[in-house]
Amino acid sequence: MFESAEIGHTLKKSAFREAEPALRRALLDVQYRLLEQNKFPVIILVNGVDGAGKGETVNLFNEWMDPRHIHTHAFGASTDAERARPEMWRFWTALPPKGNIGILFGSWYTDPILQRVLESESGAQFQLRLARIRDFERMLTAEGALIVKLWFHLSKDAQKARLNELSEKKKTAWRVTRDDWKFFKRYDDFADVGELALRETATAEAPWNIIEGSNHEYRSLTAGRLLLDALERRLKGSPQPKARAEPLPLPPVDKRDVLSTADFSRKLDHDHYQKQLDKLQGELNLLTRHKKMRDRSLVMVFEGMDAAGKGSTIRRITRAMDARFYHVVPIAAPSDEERAQPYLWRFWRHIPQRGHAVIFDRSWYGRVLVERVEKFCREEDWQRAYHEINEFEEQLAGDGAIVVKFWLAISAAEQLKRFKERAKIPHKQFKITDEDWRNRKRWPAYERAVVDMIARTSTNQAPWHLIATNDKPWARVETLKKLVETIEAQL
Amino acid sequence: MFESAEIGHTLKKSAFREAEPALRRALLDVQYRLLEQNKFPVIILVNGVDGAGKGETVNLFNEWMDPRHIHTHAFGASTDAERARPEMWRFWTALPPKGNIGILFGSWYTDPILQRVLESESGAQFQLRLARIRDFERMLTAEGALIVKLWFHLSKDAQKARLNELSEKKKTAWRVTRDDWKFFKRYDDFADVGELALRETATAEAPWNIIEGSNHEYRSLTAGRLLLDALERRLKGSPQPKARAEPLPLPPVDKRDVLSTADFSRKLDHDHYQKQLDKLQGELNLLTRHKKMRDRSLVMVFEGMDAAGKGSTIRRITRAMDARFYHVVPIAAPSDEERAQPYLWRFWRHIPQRGHAVIFDRSWYGRVLVERVEKFCREEDWQRAYHEINEFEEQLAGDGAIVVKFWLAISAAEQLKRFKERAKIPHKQFKITDEDWRNRKRWPAYERAVVDMIARTSTNQAPWHLIATNDKPWARVETLKKLVETIEAQL
Repeated sequence: MFESAEIGHTLKKSAFREAEPALRRALLDVQYRLLEQNKFPVIILVNGVDGAGKGETVNLFNEWMDPRHIHTHAFGASTDAERARPEMWRFWTALPPKGNIGILFGSWYTDPILQRVLESESGAQFQLRLARIRDFERMLTAEGALIVKLWFHLSKDAQKARLNELSEKKKTAWRVTRDDWKFFKRYDDFADVGELALRETATAEAPWNIIEGSNHEYRSLTAGRLLLDALERRLKGSPQPKARAEPLPLPPVDKRDVLSTADFSRKLDHDHYQKQLDKLQGELNLLTRHKKMRDRSLVMVFEGMDAAGKGSTIRRITRAMDARFYHVVPIAAPSDEERAQPYLWRFWRHIPQRGHAVIFDRSWYGRVLVERVEKFCREEDWQRAYHEINEFEEQLAGDGAIVVKFWLAISAAEQLKRFKERAKIPHKQFKITDEDWRNRKRWPAYERAVVDMIARTSTNQAPWHLIATNDKPWARVETLKKLVETIEAQL
Repeated sequence: MFESAEIGHTLKKSAFREAEPALRRALLDVQYRLLEQNKFPVIILVNGVDGAGKGETVNLFNEWMDPRHIHTHAFGASTDAERARPEMWRFWTALPPKGNIGILFGSWYTDPILQRVLESESGAQFQLRLARIRDFERMLTAEGALIVKLWFHLSKDAQKARLNELSEKKKTAWRVTRDDWKFFKRYDDFADVGELALRETATAEAPWNIIEGSNHEYRSLTAGRLLLDALERRLKGSPQPKARAEPLPLPPVDKRDVLSTADFSRKLDHDHYQKQLDKLQGELNLLTRHKKMRDRSLVMVFEGMDAAGKGSTIRRITRAMDARFYHVVPIAAPSDEERAQPYLWRFWRHIPQRGHAVIFDRSWYGRVLVERVEKFCREEDWQRAYHEINEFEEQLAGDGAIVVKFWLAISAAEQLKRFKERAKIPHKQFKITDEDWRNRKRWPAYERAVVDMIARTSTNQAPWHLIATNDKPWARVETLKKLVETIEAQL
């Protein structure tokens, strides 16, 4: 795979000087068109062999274009905040918004390659991480991102010569660290593992570009033209590809589903309610202060039809916890900033660090509920979301998060009763809007979406708990009970 | 994930009898439309819990529709022929052609799930196999296939009841084996592993359908309607989706590539040629009869511009081998039967069993050479082929095949000389056609395709050997030398 990048590509200084001004103008031009169109982000991944000119190229890109719209991130050793969250968190938070260019210097490839070379991970684990990366990049491109993957390569001899050259000059000697020489000794391992990484992740929608790095002029012009070509082609606007999505199952032929078979008759009288509530809140409080909780995090998701009592149930939970321990994140229509990112971005930004909890009042499930029913996104987009959501929750669970999801179910009749009550009581009128009535008309469509959601995303790692909420006291106690049980089982 | 399939779905016999005739007519109707359109195959995967009605449903599908156009395959323990080839071979050879329905009863999911439950494979290995399946199914759908995945489920209690019921009746007792009871004891393991498999492979383009299997009427009507719905929707004809494909690198700015830097000046005089040829052919012969060769296979690929000497080089190799050991497969335009299948199918059918060799005179690389240059397929199709080809060769190499690939390079001037010679010599005139002259005009486009091909598919597991063939004797000896070296290194 590296043959083409070991033949000693060079370009004369004069040829470079001649070509550079036009390239620069063209790059600046596409950058502004990108910004103006404001339709997709550009993610440039810079990886490869040390000494092959990665840093110089990143600097050059920033020099050639307007650096105000370029977000450059160098990923070194992870910070405390990063280590306290799933691996991909730091990359999610570094994604450039639409219209912008993000340069990721050292990317999601760096750690898998390093771990494999150091043999701290098996071949199967490595391949699995690569498969996950493939899915991640597929998601990014499906969301519209243009990914430009650059791999700067040097042959073994060229790397040795380069390290020697840098070491010998006083001005550049500091750039060669002991690690550089240590890694050089494992050149062949790095080449093998790197090749496998490239092979497994070179896809049609996010191909790798291998650039020979020994000659500054050749390398710079090649990288610049690659970026220009990719940007021009995308700006000319091939439309958003139409992906294939096969139909989901029809409603069951016997008309029975997890919602219609829920038992709405359960009730709890005031005395029992108060006793059990106190007991469970006490237990929850102890659990959140449990020693083992310091290495875990807690992600709670609340979804449900309007008036099912999400707010009041959440309050019964928060009252049991220290305010420094948790955050409540209410999810409404996305902000401008959030709309400029892949849809999961707005949730990644709120992922708790270990030892903390986040309660999502509505969540990423909006994609397969309201966005599906109201046609805010295309069918292929919400269809692929099931798999993406499961992967997302797997990353959370895999990093030690306890993920608990509640669907607060309410019968149609009970909802109507509550709507009418709200309309009558002055201090509750704000809670009932035209939209609520409109949503109610789509009840069957929402129910179908809920049934599909539960069938596709209720998993061992993050099961859905379906709580019948016609009787609020019973629902609150039941929710707390499930929550306490889940945390107990996991700690 | 199984919640919706454990609520005891049932349907009355009378309701089923009422609905069945219309469903049958509709299924038969879509089946004939499918056949008439002749545009895509339908692949039905039947998996799930034992006793949940998998076999009955397969029989019912064959009864409802015209079984002449249904290919039903039940995959049990693998045969000798299957064990002697990569795992996926038996599934490739079972794929239905366009216009037809294939029912795969026990599919590529069966073995991974079983191995994981029996704990003979680690969690990472299992997940990796699932990721590979996801890629495989993605390729099938990109090639146009409609995949309908059915998972028949029973709750633990329902399975126990079902097995007891079958055991008690004389007529059905034979259907319950000791294995069934042995597996039943591991119900929870199967459920956990099955859930993970479903979660990891439920994609928008090939979603899973979970069907509760305890009631014959409910299960049959549900499965029938699912199939009908999927077929009707696809026949109504959403067009072939347009996938995203980013540009490949531009030609190098210094105009130098692996082809232009090849050394065409190497020569070998007659005496040295004959001596070395004899020696190498002798070595090759011994190697093919080596004891270790019985557990390996040999896949040789020859590609090159017209008149580069593929045929004569191949003959120098075959002369060194026992005729029972090898097959030569010349690849020209695909047959009707091959056109009705995904493009890799025609190569899978020729994969050698262990202890044997196949020489491909032109190969799967046609996809990224002639099909790319002549626009016989869309850009996104040949672009995704690089990754699919690497995966294909990884499966071969992973199963013990020695994969050796030769690009026979010739200079443009030398080709012209040979064309003219052929035109002059009567017994060689058949070798030169109008097409050869036409291809020659596209020389730069072909060269670019070759350079991209080598950059993307020359891998450690299956490297490309670039042989300069302006001097035929030198080329033949060099090819034999590389071949012998590769086999020696691998044995």
